Amino acid sequence: MSGKGPLAGIRVLDATGVIVGPTSTLLLAEQGADVIKVEPPEGDLMRKLGGKAPAGKPGMSPKFTHFNRNKRSIMLDLKSPQGREVMLRLAATSDVFVSNMRPRALKSLGLTWEALSAINPKLVHCTIAGFATGGPYDGAPAYDTIIQGLSGVAACNEAMLGEPRFAPFVLTDHIVGIIAAQAICAALVARERSGEGQAIEVPMFENAAAFVLSEHLGQRTFDPEGTMGDPRIMTPDARPMRTKDGYICVSANTDAQARGFFEAIGRPELKDDPRFKDVPARLAHVKDYFGLRAQALQERTTAEWVELLRRHDVPAMPYHTLTSLLDDPQLRGSGTLTREDGEDWMLGLRHANRYSGSGLPPSRLAPRQGEHGEEILAELGYDAAERARILGKESAA
Amino acid sequence: MSGKGPLAGIRVLDATGVIVGPTSTLLLAEQGADVIKVEPPEGDLMRKLGGKAPAGKPGMSPKFTHFNRNKRSIMLDLKSPQGREVMLRLAATSDVFVSNMRPRALKSLGLTWEALSAINPKLVHCTIAGFATGGPYDGAPAYDTIIQGLSGVAACNEAMLGEPRFAPFVLTDHIVGIIAAQAICAALVARERSGEGQAIEVPMFENAAAFVLSEHLGQRTFDPEGTMGDPRIMTPDARPMRTKDGYICVSANTDAQARGFFEAIGRPELKDDPRFKDVPARLAHVKDYFGLRAQALQERTTAEWVELLRRHDVPAMPYHTLTSLLDDPQLRGSGTLTREDGEDWMLGLRHANRYSGSGLPPSRLAPRQGEHGEEILAELGYDAAERARILGKESAA
Repeated sequence: MSGKGPLAGIRVLDATGVIVGPTSTLLLAEQGADVIKVEPPEGDLMRKLGGKAPAGKPGMSPKFTHFNRNKRSIMLDLKSPQGREVMLRLAATSDVFVSNMRPRALKSLGLTWEALSAINPKLVHCTIAGFATGGPYDGAPAYDTIIQGLSGVAACNEAMLGEPRFAPFVLTDHIVGIIAAQAICAALVARERSGEGQAIEVPMFENAAAFVLSEHLGQRTFDPEGTMGDPRIMTPDARPMRTKDGYICVSANTDAQARGFFEAIGRPELKDDPRFKDVPARLAHVKDYFGLRAQALQERTTAEWVELLRRHDVPAMPYHTLTSLLDDPQLRGSGTLTREDGEDWMLGLRHANRYSGSGLPPSRLAPRQGEHGEEILAELGYDAAERARILGKESAA
Repeated sequence: MSGKGPLAGIRVLDATGVIVGPTSTLLLAEQGADVIKVEPPEGDLMRKLGGKAPAGKPGMSPKFTHFNRNKRSIMLDLKSPQGREVMLRLAATSDVFVSNMRPRALKSLGLTWEALSAINPKLVHCTIAGFATGGPYDGAPAYDTIIQGLSGVAACNEAMLGEPRFAPFVLTDHIVGIIAAQAICAALVARERSGEGQAIEVPMFENAAAFVLSEHLGQRTFDPEGTMGDPRIMTPDARPMRTKDGYICVSANTDAQARGFFEAIGRPELKDDPRFKDVPARLAHVKDYFGLRAQALQERTTAEWVELLRRHDVPAMPYHTLTSLLDDPQLRGSGTLTREDGEDWMLGLRHANRYSGSGLPPSRLAPRQGEHGEEILAELGYDAAERARILGKESAA
């Protein structure tokens, strides 16, 4: 449904780069906020780091493209007095300021909450930090893999795989970016009700560790000697299971589903097996339960199982490879993955949620570096000569 | 900093269970919303499924505890006319309604957006669905592992590990829950500005697939024959690296960091090696670059490397096991992981973000099943006899 989006009328001044910050402002931009991406003269690092850009589109790497749609871009050298002057004018007209700079950099550029709230007390000022201020790691540089290793993400893989491995995603950047967008909107709700802005600090490490530990503190929660790690997740048999011709994912956690599964595999007598009679019993015999499932599923094709299990009300779906995912009829049908109109060839993504009242704004491709500099400066009231000076086009003007 | 939280004054009617829904309302509860968790007579399944509850605290599994703090609980049988009547009175006084029921169940219980907006047009009504409505999978049951298998999470593990594996988390539930909380707050911002509520649909599959593909559409973005998967992530050498006495995580992506790394390992001549001179070069020779790093790091201890790399401005941190994470001074110091006061033994988690203006409300333990039924009914204006009848305490009254 087209519309303006729930965040129409909200302006976001986005001084972030790479993944964590752009993830957070992507959600806001998709929801209709006017996100102004301020890029340094060399551009967001992700323009080059995110894969090979197509011919004729320098700086438009695939990953940059997917994390920056619906935003506007202006190039500013925040180390120059002129760049800072534009930045302050932008901050005065914005509802939200987001950065993932370290505190020292923020201070040297004059972009702290103290500085910006003095000119715009209604501003929501969000700093995505590596670590909460005041702790021993305060101000240390944080990158996704470092946070994955430090926060237990890699440790969970070790528990499951036998060796420390990262998740195959920029996982903590990506998750903490979403968390930052949530925190920003919560602060906007508060501002709409109180009239007051505030500073938010979103630390990557603490958020990632809480994500991991909420799932895996396990018995240690209540017992200083308790074991950690959710056994239902860590068991080696919790995985897509082989069928005659591929893989299938089956979820049979409730008693009714477990009984349906035993019916479907032609082993109804297992319904009365004390090892499998209820959730605690199956948890205690998780290896037996998963092993039995893995064994049985090899006897039919994936399509046969999906159909048969559905008839017994047991949730099951095929396993997608990355390539087969692109042809999924649900994903294409919902428009979440779509061929971009007017592009030679481009597969784009869309915000997946639906809003009955505000709808969503039309989707726009990620901006070229500095693409909207001229129009943004004009909106701020800079005349043509000033715009040319700021954008370094004196000779062209 | 103590306070009321950015969502103070917002009431959330929470008809969710297990992980995806409780994840979304946990964030809202931590931020000060009054989250009323409506549990069926048998309780949230996670009370039993989430690990062993301590003696004397039935239904308080570790995982339930971590995903439900700061909430209030009331037990209602939504299939009874009486339970539904209470539910409608709650909906009339709430700002947000969240459920992860399937559309059919929502309809049969009279809890659709159409029904609830008729009594409370300012309501934000959020349905966390498996799949977007209208597509071929519409209404199919969705569980985390099924969504991991279908959305490409398991496929990314196959690309990295050689076999389909799930992530060692209830990953899509956990991420989509955060996304739902973000969407709810965006709709609350819209409501504060327009006065109107709306329905939100948050589909798990589409959100999870967009999460995966935004990172891994890769060259397929611009080329129908292009390869998928981010090679920097999928390379087998992207992992915590062995040192003399353990593991370390190092991030050396920028040119300055790469040069610092070559200095630190005593190989300054590599700074001029054309394979490693800039981001595109290192990307093209990612196996060489990571292999070289893995080799060099085995020569010193983790602590020695962290110190040495820091001196060369190369981001590096030790690798934590799940157990060593519990003793991390930053995590303990920030209060994100904390021993609960007044409990015999309990390790609890806290919201990691900081809000300078609204602060955060005091943290409260997860509720026992139905713990707040009496007080919630009293707030709704039910007299003692009605409360006793609704809560099934006729004999005790």
